[in-house]
Amino acid sequence: MPDKLSPLLAELSPLFKDRILTSSAAREHHGSGESHLPAAWPDAVIMAHSTQEVSTILSACTKYNVPVIPFGAGSSLEGQIHAPHGGISLDLSAMDAILDVQDADMDCRVQCGVTRQALNEHLRATGLFFPVDLGAHATLGGMAATRASGTTTVRYGSMRDLVLGLTVVMPDGEIIKTGGRARKSASGYDLTRLMIGSEGTLGIITELTVRLFGIPEASQTAMCTFETIEDATETVVMALQCGLALNRIELADTLQMQAINRYSKTELPERPTLWVEMTGSPATVENDMETFVALAETAVNIDQAKTAEDAARIWRIRHDALYASRALRPGIKGISTDVCVPISQLPACISAIQDVIATTSIQAPLVGHVGDGNFHLVLLYDPADEAEVCEAKHINAALVSMAIEMGGTCTGEHGVGLGKKAYLPAEHGPALGVMARIKRAIDPDNIMNPGKIFDL
Amino acid sequence: MPDKLSPLLAELSPLFKDRILTSSAAREHHGSGESHLPAAWPDAVIMAHSTQEVSTILSACTKYNVPVIPFGAGSSLEGQIHAPHGGISLDLSAMDAILDVQDADMDCRVQCGVTRQALNEHLRATGLFFPVDLGAHATLGGMAATRASGTTTVRYGSMRDLVLGLTVVMPDGEIIKTGGRARKSASGYDLTRLMIGSEGTLGIITELTVRLFGIPEASQTAMCTFETIEDATETVVMALQCGLALNRIELADTLQMQAINRYSKTELPERPTLWVEMTGSPATVENDMETFVALAETAVNIDQAKTAEDAARIWRIRHDALYASRALRPGIKGISTDVCVPISQLPACISAIQDVIATTSIQAPLVGHVGDGNFHLVLLYDPADEAEVCEAKHINAALVSMAIEMGGTCTGEHGVGLGKKAYLPAEHGPALGVMARIKRAIDPDNIMNPGKIFDL
Repeated sequence: MPDKLSPLLAELSPLFKDRILTSSAAREHHGSGESHLPAAWPDAVIMAHSTQEVSTILSACTKYNVPVIPFGAGSSLEGQIHAPHGGISLDLSAMDAILDVQDADMDCRVQCGVTRQALNEHLRATGLFFPVDLGAHATLGGMAATRASGTTTVRYGSMRDLVLGLTVVMPDGEIIKTGGRARKSASGYDLTRLMIGSEGTLGIITELTVRLFGIPEASQTAMCTFETIEDATETVVMALQCGLALNRIELADTLQMQAINRYSKTELPERPTLWVEMTGSPATVENDMETFVALAETAVNIDQAKTAEDAARIWRIRHDALYASRALRPGIKGISTDVCVPISQLPACISAIQDVIATTSIQAPLVGHVGDGNFHLVLLYDPADEAEVCEAKHINAALVSMAIEMGGTCTGEHGVGLGKKAYLPAEHGPALGVMARIKRAIDPDNIMNPGKIFDL
Repeated sequence: MPDKLSPLLAELSPLFKDRILTSSAAREHHGSGESHLPAAWPDAVIMAHSTQEVSTILSACTKYNVPVIPFGAGSSLEGQIHAPHGGISLDLSAMDAILDVQDADMDCRVQCGVTRQALNEHLRATGLFFPVDLGAHATLGGMAATRASGTTTVRYGSMRDLVLGLTVVMPDGEIIKTGGRARKSASGYDLTRLMIGSEGTLGIITELTVRLFGIPEASQTAMCTFETIEDATETVVMALQCGLALNRIELADTLQMQAINRYSKTELPERPTLWVEMTGSPATVENDMETFVALAETAVNIDQAKTAEDAARIWRIRHDALYASRALRPGIKGISTDVCVPISQLPACISAIQDVIATTSIQAPLVGHVGDGNFHLVLLYDPADEAEVCEAKHINAALVSMAIEMGGTCTGEHGVGLGKKAYLPAEHGPALGVMARIKRAIDPDNIMNPGKIFDL
């Protein structure tokens, strides 16, 4: 790699000057992220400021056959930003301009480094917002590249659904625009959706046009306790079938509730729990929450928020779930893994994985976006303890294999990266070969985030 | 072609027997469809009954290098089923089994030849329905292949949004499964979305898993007349920003309303008109229609349906719009063309194209799915009159070029086929080259519906 790297950096130095970083600190930061995987440092980091600069860098990387790994906020969980083959970490975080907001069309165009928080801050005066709501302080480029979703997918859809168009720099430096500003189109292949979720292996997303929505007039929140996960899930299925104005519907298991009580100093029932939020007009919210409460006849306790502060308190408990989990075992970060299954399979999948967990020494609290059939386990293992590492890996593999068996997927929202790569043949079968053929056609030299999604 | 065809048919005859058709009637039927384009017959038609049979046919077509054109209901409008290079029309209409309905998960798996009407008929007892609502009696396979949408896209999305997974036969006969039954996934490239809208140029869709929805409890309909298209559009923008429970919101221009009055023997105001339908719980529908009426302060007339029969009457008028258009010039079928623009551009786009139309002798009534910025013109020209043909082509080209200029697309829902192919370079620029690279990687011999979307 250094042999190829020197001429590349020599060529780019006059253009990027001190925006080329080769310090250990910069390389470590750009090769670790929030994943549980061991760090894999890039050889250098380059800070890009424009689509044109990204194009210049990719042309040069193609010329010298050097890998390029796009980097946004570094919040990916499966090693998407790692550099297992070295190369350049292309840091896009300075590309954080909000280029255009169109109120009447309810869309906006942003650079890839804009975070969802920054976008919503910017939109505040318009009465509009961008709904994809993750745990992480992520960039929109990274969220598109990993097909992110989060708590409001049940209402608004994921990045897949909410991106109208992209600017993408291809491996040879060519700049393309996919999609546009029309709400729908039947014109040609859906390159927008091909790029979304491709994790930087086909091109680098530098701009996005995304849909916005009016901030709902009213909202109501409730927290409901059930005897069993089945009871909770059945209530969710009925609510979905009735088309209630659900904005969020989140699940936690008993262990997660124990962790929350300990962490948040609460005395909540330590049983499977649903957080529910309805949004819309006051009439809709009132009516639909009433219907939900009537549907939730198996609930043993329903705590309806009376005020906005009360609702905020209930949601804070949910938002602190990850910290609460980690506090079960101080000093341990754990693997945050996720799968997604058809919602009817959720109780069986959860029960089966809890049986597997019970055969190990690992604690693994569960939270989920239950309206989508998507749930997360935090596997609290000590990376220094080989036996625990083995157990955690075993649980993760068992979880994925059950999810696939049940018609689901190895990851609902965290993506593949390095961490889930081994499971793709089982999930996709021969379709994986078609993906690889597309990868080779678009990136014949395999310089784009090599080693992610698949090995070629 | 006949040189290649004889050995192909000789190989397939023992398997398909009288399901291979070479009569002029069969070839004509399979090479015409509902488009305005001159027929282009296939050399033969084969009726497939299973995914395995489709695989056998594609393997043989690859072996003998014979084009294959998938055929569902023949309702495509832009020549998607035409056979400009001859070859086999692969008729999938007999693959009409509904394989699996999962009430709790609100999804179902069907063969590609199932029509949306047949599916909704089958679902009647479940309280669920499949919402994509086109003018045509189309098959779900064809609807996916052309990325179809229709009147309810504003609420439920298009085929792009509602397909969870596909079974696809690739050019060499390999059978792949894309997606699955999970509501979301971040696992690998989105081959489902790549196949949707690819018009049979990458593979043949033989099975689909699609999302279903609960039939809303209540609905309310109104028909509103405005002085200008701007007034109508501004009302729609406000309704969208408020997140009202719109199920359909449809627009017709003055000429269309004149056509309707003449055809349906009505005395409706001959001005820009909106049809609006709210669906949801009775409380939501009541509240949101009230809000809509308050927002529509520029409306000169609002006709709210009092009963279900009254609502049906109002929607029948909308559904008969195409027949009403054609009745303006009996014996003339016309081109039904469509574009989609950002909704704020709709009045400008409509006004500009009406100015162009006024310079010709062509009548062109307009209807549109205004919530999506998508509208249709029926260009009533006589195909035997060369001057009119030129004028119609001129209007279509002007319309597309305006739509692209305004950030829109050359087709919102009819697709590219042969009819819109010439406009793709202007719309997609270098992205079209990336599409072509994917086509070549997946179908190197160009046997899959060759000549559609692009020339290679």
